[in-house]
Amino acid sequence: MRARPGRRSGRRSGRTDGTRDGKPVHDETSTPAAARADRLTVTAITVTPVAVKDPPLLNASGCHQPYALRSIIELHTDAGITGLSEAYGDDPTLDLLGRAARALTGLDVFDINGLTRRAAASLGSFTASNPTELIGPTGADKTVAQIVAAFEVACFDVQGKATGRRVADLLGGAVRERVDYSGYLFYKWAEHPAGGGCDFEPDGWGAALDPEGIVAQARRMVDEFGFGSLKLKGGVFPPEQEVEAIRALRRAFPDHPLRIDPNANWSVATSLSVAEQLEGELEYLEDPTPGIAGMAEVAAGTALPLATNMCVTSFADIPEAVRRGAVGVVLSDHHFWGGLRASQRLAGLCETFGLGLSMHSNTHLGISLAAMTQLAAATPNLTYALDTHSPWQRGFGGGPHEAQDVVRPGALRFEGGSLRVPDGPGLGVELDRDALARLHEQYLTCGIRRRDDLTHMRLMHPGWSGHRPRF
Amino acid sequence: MRARPGRRSGRRSGRTDGTRDGKPVHDETSTPAAARADRLTVTAITVTPVAVKDPPLLNASGCHQPYALRSIIELHTDAGITGLSEAYGDDPTLDLLGRAARALTGLDVFDINGLTRRAAASLGSFTASNPTELIGPTGADKTVAQIVAAFEVACFDVQGKATGRRVADLLGGAVRERVDYSGYLFYKWAEHPAGGGCDFEPDGWGAALDPEGIVAQARRMVDEFGFGSLKLKGGVFPPEQEVEAIRALRRAFPDHPLRIDPNANWSVATSLSVAEQLEGELEYLEDPTPGIAGMAEVAAGTALPLATNMCVTSFADIPEAVRRGAVGVVLSDHHFWGGLRASQRLAGLCETFGLGLSMHSNTHLGISLAAMTQLAAATPNLTYALDTHSPWQRGFGGGPHEAQDVVRPGALRFEGGSLRVPDGPGLGVELDRDALARLHEQYLTCGIRRRDDLTHMRLMHPGWSGHRPRF
Repeated sequence: MRARPGRRSGRRSGRTDGTRDGKPVHDETSTPAAARADRLTVTAITVTPVAVKDPPLLNASGCHQPYALRSIIELHTDAGITGLSEAYGDDPTLDLLGRAARALTGLDVFDINGLTRRAAASLGSFTASNPTELIGPTGADKTVAQIVAAFEVACFDVQGKATGRRVADLLGGAVRERVDYSGYLFYKWAEHPAGGGCDFEPDGWGAALDPEGIVAQARRMVDEFGFGSLKLKGGVFPPEQEVEAIRALRRAFPDHPLRIDPNANWSVATSLSVAEQLEGELEYLEDPTPGIAGMAEVAAGTALPLATNMCVTSFADIPEAVRRGAVGVVLSDHHFWGGLRASQRLAGLCETFGLGLSMHSNTHLGISLAAMTQLAAATPNLTYALDTHSPWQRGFGGGPHEAQDVVRPGALRFEGGSLRVPDGPGLGVELDRDALARLHEQYLTCGIRRRDDLTHMRLMHPGWSGHRPRF
Repeated sequence: MRARPGRRSGRRSGRTDGTRDGKPVHDETSTPAAARADRLTVTAITVTPVAVKDPPLLNASGCHQPYALRSIIELHTDAGITGLSEAYGDDPTLDLLGRAARALTGLDVFDINGLTRRAAASLGSFTASNPTELIGPTGADKTVAQIVAAFEVACFDVQGKATGRRVADLLGGAVRERVDYSGYLFYKWAEHPAGGGCDFEPDGWGAALDPEGIVAQARRMVDEFGFGSLKLKGGVFPPEQEVEAIRALRRAFPDHPLRIDPNANWSVATSLSVAEQLEGELEYLEDPTPGIAGMAEVAAGTALPLATNMCVTSFADIPEAVRRGAVGVVLSDHHFWGGLRASQRLAGLCETFGLGLSMHSNTHLGISLAAMTQLAAATPNLTYALDTHSPWQRGFGGGPHEAQDVVRPGALRFEGGSLRVPDGPGLGVELDRDALARLHEQYLTCGIRRRDDLTHMRLMHPGWSGHRPRF
């Protein structure tokens, strides 16, 4: 039952860099002391890094590498119930997860406050670099929040499995049985650049480098997944071209709510100019420019709601953002806000201050998708369609619903752009051990250990600075 | 098992007003349709009003009547598990509880969002008068919040009983195993005024009408219950006399944190003058003056933190209070904030905006005391000692720990001014059916159907206007 593909594979020598063979797998075991029937305490935690093939998606930082990293967390308890979670898979995150995991033996899975305390104590004031700059600045509190989130989801999965309940039930009850997602459009190349470590066939999506390419991509997204709203990852080309792409989307999909997210790659002046051109076309304009002050300046000059997952990324950011009226919508993300309960705290803040609530996504697999869906189902004011990168893990052979994933197929199938809330218990997804072993093997051999969109972009554009705002 | 003392007694004719004999007892029963093993749905709700003897405690509105009203809620489920809760017991509240109870049959006890939706739908935009003006203005949202709270606590009690968990565990885990309470001092008469309907012997506390009386009362509170902090209910006598009482308390208890709460019975000028005199003496000054604007004016003129349970009593009040810096501490109260989850939402707001968090109390019995304790145990930033009226229900014969109560003795015993978190499952208290029947009988015969401190005061002071601010 307790197969640990990470440990098993860790003894191999298939790694390309050969420096830390199997190291990122953390496995802490202990014997629980006098476990009570009404307690469910952590006995061991397994963290298995995995790599999934990723298309060459373009953004303000550069280009996605051929493999995206995630870590799969199995939290074992004295009741024999194992909880699942999923987190970033870069080296710094794996180190943090391991450090905290050692401090969690004996934790009661209902004791989320205790999880927070233990994680904070194990990390001290350590501040890790963020897995990506696209989720805003880092900090000691945010470092703790990421690690708490990684384990908290697994605790809720155990709670659900032990009580026969969906995570959505444990979070206050589902207010919707289907959760809407947004089709996430990216400018992209047809293939990864030569020398970028891509050892697989191109994804089937082809290039999208102009308005027509974006509309064609959107058409396929809508046809295959049924998305009822669309988001364009911008900040890649000069704003006038991206404005044209939005206009082309509007013409092609007259009734789809549209968003654009240039990842703070525009100056305030550029943002105001784009906002003026797109007023009436967008449901929100996401992170046009860096920082709360800049966002506030843009907000003051447009009727378009500004959304963010870059300038308001922790509770500490909220008072200033509220005071300055910098944002109208916050994109939550349980991975960096501190978990499911923390995301509901954020939801309460948004409701209280009249802010909209949406949800951000980095590249993720089915465990995170299930957690996002359970959380969204139980959060009444999460009324915007959620972001997801999920379709981009589904482009490598097979049909549109055959994802590269670590969970058994079937629980998470997009229909009409939405997912049915998995029917539990817990998150409602099951680990596919063969798939996990395969994706871990891919991790061992892919050579990527942290996300670096900048370097990958420089293979194509050697002079690329990555400086933001670029426009 | 399903004794319903309300219904049983409702057939008697022991009521003094004879108009609504037994009416306030609501009892909705239905057969659950195809109950699933992993569901716990509401099959019936029993609401039993009770009356407890109350001393003649003085406040800004007037004087406590001889009986205080509460309602005891039993929420029955298809699993045979019954959850307990406690709410206000005045006629308007009983009517609301009955209206909402009829809409809750079939509710899954984990579905707190569904409870809110059903309660809101059953009440519409109806706005009930508050059980007391001392908890601020009323409103449709606050009406719903009170009713949700009343049933939500019972839902959590069932959840805990079904999962073998304390309510504190279900709220994120206990961060403290003992919860500190504050000794709640009142100016009071030795006896209720003649003609006020008091049919029992005077409480054993005697009068407290000057600084010496307050110090003597505090001494007994501290000796018998061990309270480590003290709160004086003010707004009764001219402020200079109440300032003297605080100074006398400071001399008698040099290390006890002190608070005073005049229930908004002072003008801004009076509040500023008192604040100047008491800076350095108080941990906080509670509701000196009415309204957010007035509180903001006082806050701007003193270094004393201002606390409130009168001008910030719903989420809708928070943005303005934050913007104007009107308060430094919010006194939560699950009874009117919307329940335990809503109280944690409030806690998150306070933490985010750097506000302190304390807890307010009206007259209550052991079910509410258990809920307050479970909630406080699971709320990290609830760092102030909580208010409780509990000692005042313990003054009628017997020792200081023998309360008039509906719960079996033993679970809630003050030691060192604190309560141990009841050891569950659920709230950790059990209904004493004999006591419930006795206190319900007392309700039927006492003749009081809504709280009216003003009229009771006028028995002694016929010209009493009740106008605030008085000073």
